Amino acid sequence: MTKIKIGQVGLGRLGKVHASNIVKHVNNAELYAVASVVEQELEYASETLGVQHCYTSYSDMLDNDALDAVVIASPSGFHAVQITQALEKGLHVFSEKPIGLELENIRQVVDKIHDHPHKVFQLGFMRRFDESYLYAKDAVDRGELGKITAMRCYGIDPSSGLDRFIQFAKNSASGGLFLDMSIHDIDLVRWFTGSEFKTVYSLGNNIAAPELTACDELETGACLSELEDGTIAYFLAGRNAQHGYHVETEIIGTEGMIRIGNAPEKNLVTLYDKNGVVRPTSDHFPERFRFAFINEMNTFVSTIKNKDQSSVTAMDGLKSTEVAIAMQNSIETKKVITL
Amino acid sequence: MTKIKIGQVGLGRLGKVHASNIVKHVNNAELYAVASVVEQELEYASETLGVQHCYTSYSDMLDNDALDAVVIASPSGFHAVQITQALEKGLHVFSEKPIGLELENIRQVVDKIHDHPHKVFQLGFMRRFDESYLYAKDAVDRGELGKITAMRCYGIDPSSGLDRFIQFAKNSASGGLFLDMSIHDIDLVRWFTGSEFKTVYSLGNNIAAPELTACDELETGACLSELEDGTIAYFLAGRNAQHGYHVETEIIGTEGMIRIGNAPEKNLVTLYDKNGVVRPTSDHFPERFRFAFINEMNTFVSTIKNKDQSSVTAMDGLKSTEVAIAMQNSIETKKVITL
Amino acid sequence: MTKIKIGQVGLGRLGKVHASNIVKHVNNAELYAVASVVEQELEYASETLGVQHCYTSYSDMLDNDALDAVVIASPSGFHAVQITQALEKGLHVFSEKPIGLELENIRQVVDKIHDHPHKVFQLGFMRRFDESYLYAKDAVDRGELGKITAMRCYGIDPSSGLDRFIQFAKNSASGGLFLDMSIHDIDLVRWFTGSEFKTVYSLGNNIAAPELTACDELETGACLSELEDGTIAYFLAGRNAQHGYHVETEIIGTEGMIRIGNAPEKNLVTLYDKNGVVRPTSDHFPERFRFAFINEMNTFVSTIKNKDQSSVTAMDGLKSTEVAIAMQNSIETKKVITL
Amino acid sequence: MTKIKIGQVGLGRLGKVHASNIVKHVNNAELYAVASVVEQELEYASETLGVQHCYTSYSDMLDNDALDAVVIASPSGFHAVQITQALEKGLHVFSEKPIGLELENIRQVVDKIHDHPHKVFQLGFMRRFDESYLYAKDAVDRGELGKITAMRCYGIDPSSGLDRFIQFAKNSASGGLFLDMSIHDIDLVRWFTGSEFKTVYSLGNNIAAPELTACDELETGACLSELEDGTIAYFLAGRNAQHGYHVETEIIGTEGMIRIGNAPEKNLVTLYDKNGVVRPTSDHFPERFRFAFINEMNTFVSTIKNKDQSSVTAMDGLKSTEVAIAMQNSIETKKVITL
Repeated sequence: MTKIKIGQVGLGRLGKVHASNIVKHVNNAELYAVASVVEQELEYASETLGVQHCYTSYSDMLDNDALDAVVIASPSGFHAVQITQALEKGLHVFSEKPIGLELENIRQVVDKIHDHPHKVFQLGFMRRFDESYLYAKDAVDRGELGKITAMRCYGIDPSSGLDRFIQFAKNSASGGLFLDMSIHDIDLVRWFTGSEFKTVYSLGNNIAAPELTACDELETGACLSELEDGTIAYFLAGRNAQHGYHVETEIIGTEGMIRIGNAPEKNLVTLYDKNGVVRPTSDHFPERFRFAFINEMNTFVSTIKNKDQSSVTAMDGLKSTEVAIAMQNSIETKKVITL
Repeated sequence: MTKIKIGQVGLGRLGKVHASNIVKHVNNAELYAVASVVEQELEYASETLGVQHCYTSYSDMLDNDALDAVVIASPSGFHAVQITQALEKGLHVFSEKPIGLELENIRQVVDKIHDHPHKVFQLGFMRRFDESYLYAKDAVDRGELGKITAMRCYGIDPSSGLDRFIQFAKNSASGGLFLDMSIHDIDLVRWFTGSEFKTVYSLGNNIAAPELTACDELETGACLSELEDGTIAYFLAGRNAQHGYHVETEIIGTEGMIRIGNAPEKNLVTLYDKNGVVRPTSDHFPERFRFAFINEMNTFVSTIKNKDQSSVTAMDGLKSTEVAIAMQNSIETKKVITL
Repeated sequence: MTKIKIGQVGLGRLGKVHASNIVKHVNNAELYAVASVVEQELEYASETLGVQHCYTSYSDMLDNDALDAVVIASPSGFHAVQITQALEKGLHVFSEKPIGLELENIRQVVDKIHDHPHKVFQLGFMRRFDESYLYAKDAVDRGELGKITAMRCYGIDPSSGLDRFIQFAKNSASGGLFLDMSIHDIDLVRWFTGSEFKTVYSLGNNIAAPELTACDELETGACLSELEDGTIAYFLAGRNAQHGYHVETEIIGTEGMIRIGNAPEKNLVTLYDKNGVVRPTSDHFPERFRFAFINEMNTFVSTIKNKDQSSVTAMDGLKSTEVAIAMQNSIETKKVITL
Repeated sequence: MTKIKIGQVGLGRLGKVHASNIVKHVNNAELYAVASVVEQELEYASETLGVQHCYTSYSDMLDNDALDAVVIASPSGFHAVQITQALEKGLHVFSEKPIGLELENIRQVVDKIHDHPHKVFQLGFMRRFDESYLYAKDAVDRGELGKITAMRCYGIDPSSGLDRFIQFAKNSASGGLFLDMSIHDIDLVRWFTGSEFKTVYSLGNNIAAPELTACDELETGACLSELEDGTIAYFLAGRNAQHGYHVETEIIGTEGMIRIGNAPEKNLVTLYDKNGVVRPTSDHFPERFRFAFINEMNTFVSTIKNKDQSSVTAMDGLKSTEVAIAMQNSIETKKVITL
């Protein structure tokens, strides 16, 4: 069994998660090469992970003919061109979301991907590979909830990161709360319902972080939307969960209701102390989704091995981005937006 | 200590709860008289509760000079006139919501109530007297959550009552899901935030009960609204909770978050059986709010005794009704409604 | 419907609960008289509860021929003689546990009670009237758990009362942890299983309160016992629950398992804050069992009305006391005790 | 970085878990060889895991000089001799518990291990590597619970395996419930408290599986024990948990209490359906401890790499076995056993 040779670009917070998983938990692959313009990231790859081929240029890495696939975890602005280059080199591609920063750009990449049907393209919607979400999806698909009538999706980052985000927002554009955070939730709604979005209407406030208003950012945003099949979907995104990293998804069906992450329990421990009866909580996304990240990368590799195509497509990225942009437009226009 | 002499009109499902509570759990009052056009209801009052004065006419009951106060639990269409008559007789009034069926009508009653400042008028928003809500209100008022940024209110009736509602809807008008059910939630949002509603935008569907579409009713309705202070409030009302009676309220603040009724636990029992780890749930509102109903009636009586005024005013009824009607209008116009 | 006229002796912490419940929540009874040697207690009865007949002597109260029944909530040392006197006056008796301080004494009272088969005698095992316990008992009786194989009973008082207990223990004898606290648990095991105790083996320690060793008291005590039908029962009693009042009962059966009070949730509130996801907890027994106390008193009164006999008998008191004393003996002898 | 070459003996249920983990999740090791007398097991190793060197004889495998370490997952009766042989060949050893079937035998192996201080010996107490237990251990070590006063350990196998166990028990000896199951719990108590056992007293019954009595086995066993530092420890072992695999550990301290696995939640999903509010549960130990198994094997390998010694020693195995045997003796003698 020869191992899939992966070259990864980008070794930031999320990039390190992927690189480390490939080395430690993806048996059928090896992290053959990395590319980064950050010296410490290459050092980390070389010394901690034992990667042999380290490049300061993505293009140079792609020139190494030994590669089978790339993992793209660079800043969002580079995704589109890096995906394109890799496909043109005949490589399989795993890319973090978003595919690109603008819709036109994304559509071009989607076309390019469709021109390479025998190359695996997988987008980093890792929640689909989380065991709790898989359990819920299986229950929904077996009909245990009957028909879906409404969904609710919360994505609230921990308060511990709020100050850092405020500093970031003073100098950079995140793309807005919905594009930055709700896009995972939008993907989940499409995945669970199999339906597309028809309308969105959004609100937002900065009660918890008034400084963000000057940066044209929101601390809390909410959106009420309708899908083509009539399902109602509600989204709440925020940057100030005092109890940790709160990702919660609710699916209400005609025969029952499921909540994933009703309380973001860290483990199976319950404390009984002066505060009451306490469940400790997940601190951040690398903790909450650590096994999902492993699963998604193993799936990418086995999809290549099996000459299959990924279930998380470029079109999923495009559609979710369209919805997130509409949610943001609704904030700006104070109107219901029809997709 | 002389007991407050109460005359009650209406002894349906909710009326029986009030009457029985007055007899059994309201020490400073006695159920002196009842009025109903339903013979069995008078029999129940006389035989089961031992009420001495039973009337087939509300006006006749009011002519009994011994009365101090009335409890109005008759069909909604009678509330306005019965409140007015009682006030004109110099009686204190506890009335179930709504005060009236139309806004103009309600405003007239509100004026009438304001003309009788020394008579207690209390509206039946019993949730404000539930110990879980009181605990949460106290936490909010002490500042434990910081400033409120968002709320979420669910009111979902048990599936066991859906067929009966469909039969009802074929012949009668409920006033719509928001007026019928969300009005309690609207009141809670006003109570917790101390702010008024600015805009509402609603959606609805009948995926779980297609027959309701022909009746111009909704099985599931949702509303996203903004308060004057910027708080975001989301409402979900439904008639098909398979697990029982689901009333849930979430308050997100800058310093933490509270959920009341996250799971509508029936008691302190946990079952570990073939289904997994199971918490039994409340079946319906008389069970969920049984102590709230007792507390609200005791409060009504002690307010009279203390020559005080109620904290649940006619204006609360008017404001909440205005919002519920706007929510319904949003469904019909598919637009964001500004209050 | 004439009301049962109750005379109550003792208006301490628990006595006040009973007296107040009779006045406010027991419709078919009136608190006709009270007896206490504590002046403030009589004042409380007279002023706060409006009791007409106040006595400084129990015997004098019994001489009032209007009485139908007595409620005995005096210090434990008086119970035996007060029960006897009341029965001899032809009165129904509700008595707090224990019936008496010594087995011989209790047996005499049991005989006396048996000599008055037409008088209701009810012992204050209020947990049997708690809705969670009733729900569990019903499930067990319906066979939902199959045959019972093992039980676990925790009774841990809140840490907030530990210092006060230590002061108390320096001057007085509580009868020991098992007689003071586990007796309720012993009664529950007999009630759920319908079986009697065969052997007990106990351990104890004072790691949390070394001062108690000099007082011949235990902060924590545990007992492993076997019932005649083979069921295993484990008991833990303690005086130092940091999270509040922890009463928990587990019933393991061949078809499933039930826990009552797995977490002693105060209400339906869940907090999501810096501590994690938190359920507030019950502070003490008057809070945890407030509705059980109301139910038990209503049951006492309706049992009298129905000329029935109580389901919580003097024999239940005797049997549970025998077991508690055996548990204490096991601590002293370090041996397995056979009953 | 050269990889540690592991030879594994035994590829049954648990053996497959280890072998698969070594291949997929232990980056610094390779599964170089396997030995088994079961043909299908060797086929599995060769075909599914791609193991190159497959032996029908453990001795033959040990003759392969390339090996660095062995993983022993064979039937318990072989452990002692296989550990000894491996040590004599100069190999590091990871062995499943028990070290041996009889105390004398185990003591000889412990001596042998002590004669090879530069070889890593790690015993398969995987719970110490579970993240929930590690979280609790860390809290205890930081003093969050104060001093430990009592512990409770439940290990109940799922009902789904009961029939199979009954068939097994008709032909084979499991060593008894305490040696087979409670040994993990005994180890946890020693690990958390740092104290040794002083006395044990056990009970058992076969209410759920009367057939086991003839096999001299117990379906349910319980033990109350005292540690040298005064801590009370209660154990319950069983083979009939209808809701799945129930491993629960409670640590009561002077400052608070911790429960690990209060409910054996399978994931973060909550169902709201006709049964109530339901948490799905773990089915069996490979599911519950899947990450613990990975962690323990990675720890074994990194301990070898770091020329360190394991924290889970042969002495831990010996001590826990002594306690389990005493628990079993208590059943037979119906007496308190002093260690």
